[in-house]
Amino acid sequence: MATEPKKIIIDTDPGIDDAMAIFLALRSPEVEVIGLTTIYGNVYTTLATRNALHLLEVAGRTDIPVAEGSHVTLNKEPKLGVTDFVHGADGLGNQNFPPPNGKPIEESAADFLVNQAKVNPGKVTVVALGPLTNIALAIQMDPEFVKNIGQIVLLGGSFAVNGNANPAAEANIYGDPQAADVVFISGANVLAVGINVTHQVVLSGSDREKLASSKGKFAQYLTGILEVYFAYHFDAYNTNGAYLHDPTALLAAVDPSLVTCTEGTVRVQTSGITRGLTILCNKHKSFGEITEWSNKPSVKVAVTVDAPRVVKLVMDRLLS
Amino acid sequence: MATEPKKIIIDTDPGIDDAMAIFLALRSPEVEVIGLTTIYGNVYTTLATRNALHLLEVAGRTDIPVAEGSHVTLNKEPKLGVTDFVHGADGLGNQNFPPPNGKPIEESAADFLVNQAKVNPGKVTVVALGPLTNIALAIQMDPEFVKNIGQIVLLGGSFAVNGNANPAAEANIYGDPQAADVVFISGANVLAVGINVTHQVVLSGSDREKLASSKGKFAQYLTGILEVYFAYHFDAYNTNGAYLHDPTALLAAVDPSLVTCTEGTVRVQTSGITRGLTILCNKHKSFGEITEWSNKPSVKVAVTVDAPRVVKLVMDRLLS
Repeated sequence: MATEPKKIIIDTDPGIDDAMAIFLALRSPEVEVIGLTTIYGNVYTTLATRNALHLLEVAGRTDIPVAEGSHVTLNKEPKLGVTDFVHGADGLGNQNFPPPNGKPIEESAADFLVNQAKVNPGKVTVVALGPLTNIALAIQMDPEFVKNIGQIVLLGGSFAVNGNANPAAEANIYGDPQAADVVFISGANVLAVGINVTHQVVLSGSDREKLASSKGKFAQYLTGILEVYFAYHFDAYNTNGAYLHDPTALLAAVDPSLVTCTEGTVRVQTSGITRGLTILCNKHKSFGEITEWSNKPSVKVAVTVDAPRVVKLVMDRLLS
Repeated sequence: MATEPKKIIIDTDPGIDDAMAIFLALRSPEVEVIGLTTIYGNVYTTLATRNALHLLEVAGRTDIPVAEGSHVTLNKEPKLGVTDFVHGADGLGNQNFPPPNGKPIEESAADFLVNQAKVNPGKVTVVALGPLTNIALAIQMDPEFVKNIGQIVLLGGSFAVNGNANPAAEANIYGDPQAADVVFISGANVLAVGINVTHQVVLSGSDREKLASSKGKFAQYLTGILEVYFAYHFDAYNTNGAYLHDPTALLAAVDPSLVTCTEGTVRVQTSGITRGLTILCNKHKSFGEITEWSNKPSVKVAVTVDAPRVVKLVMDRLLS
């Protein structure tokens, strides 16, 4: 008998690499996508919802529900930034896609997360590709959520390397540091995949050409939207390639053997010039006094990735 | 004609590894120690001054002036912590040394730094082995100080690794984060040697035995005080060895070829759970917006160290 596919909910702010991750998930027999929840980040939440519905229509998977997430941070901060300079003003490479026909479900993202975890206790993995507001709201709404949810695999943090929002912070954690801190010390089964790992996973210019010359539906679609993403990487990093942030986190949920991990308590700085910074406390040093990391639950943090195997999976599944 | 030795002022909070660094400097023909300035850190400033005078008496070098430094942080915070659990209550391994005969000079540490840099423009290196309050005060007192001082070589920061005061912060920066930030963005010629580097430089148990069996004055003295320092390392890191923090920073000033460096802007988080954290911004990434690191002076940050050569220099010079 075949193993039952792992149920996943993708919390997403599409986003060019979000689109790749969603398509990848739909092409991965190891997982069953039971819903998308939306969040601000690469775009505002309203546009994230529109793009999530659009991507499912492109994929012919309008059976998958989309639950709209929070429009504001956990602490309802007045100013929200989005990284449209990375993904285009529409979040999908400025391609002028028509509006979707579908609509989000009535349930909010946090309600959807809580309810799906409740009806499938221990069986649902959330793959969180944006700021962690929805996940933190679910944790605050239902004390059982951290037990009911199987795993939270999140793209976030810049462990022991510079951030990409600024030298201290990675963009998803920077988007809602308070929410991230709630998630990290919640006691849930969390795997954090940070840019220290995803910066090792690059879609090259020649990979992009292979996608462009393929007749595959997803490959064709992505070829259009990748132009803006490659242009950003050329400007920011002076490279003809693009980091596969969201696809790497998604694939770490699909096949945990793609990464190796360490474990420890992660806390997030929530104010000041390093707001959004993640600090993992390794367990090999005892400190002279109680710290903010002491006696808090541990999470897994990815430290290495089999980058060639991730890129091959991305290409094989998106070309097919 | 022989090269003139480099004039150095050691800003110090003795401190067991400070004692090693001071003795090393006195045995290093490449440098001329023109003064010690004192600061809180391993002990309170009053005791640091007493210990500095005592160490110069042990070395027979009472010709070297000691200038007492600040008793409080740059922002005069009410609560000051000292790491007496690392160095002993007296800072020197609880050996009950008699009080020194000498006294500090009338000049404050900051005045001494400013004046020595003024009369020897470009010729004085400060080796800063404690919190950076005195250096920041000198910078604030005299706008010419950053030009007059030749170099500031400081033991501080935990670049891309956990701290030793807590998971975020290294002890010297944690001691006065505001002062450290002033120094890092002052425009002075700064070389930061952090614990990411000094944790590679270990005095082993057998090195300690060699010191113990030597008849050398400094080796004999250090053998007595190292017991407490080794006991701390055994408790905190479960190792029979001791990190050579201060000796490594001192030797980086004596022979810059012992370390390799990167360059970039360093800022210090001054509040919150990661207070005292240092973030170096590498120059290979451009960010979407102006950050707290943008358009600020760069410093050098040590990234590798020739640890065997450092340990050999320490042993050769302290055994002689």
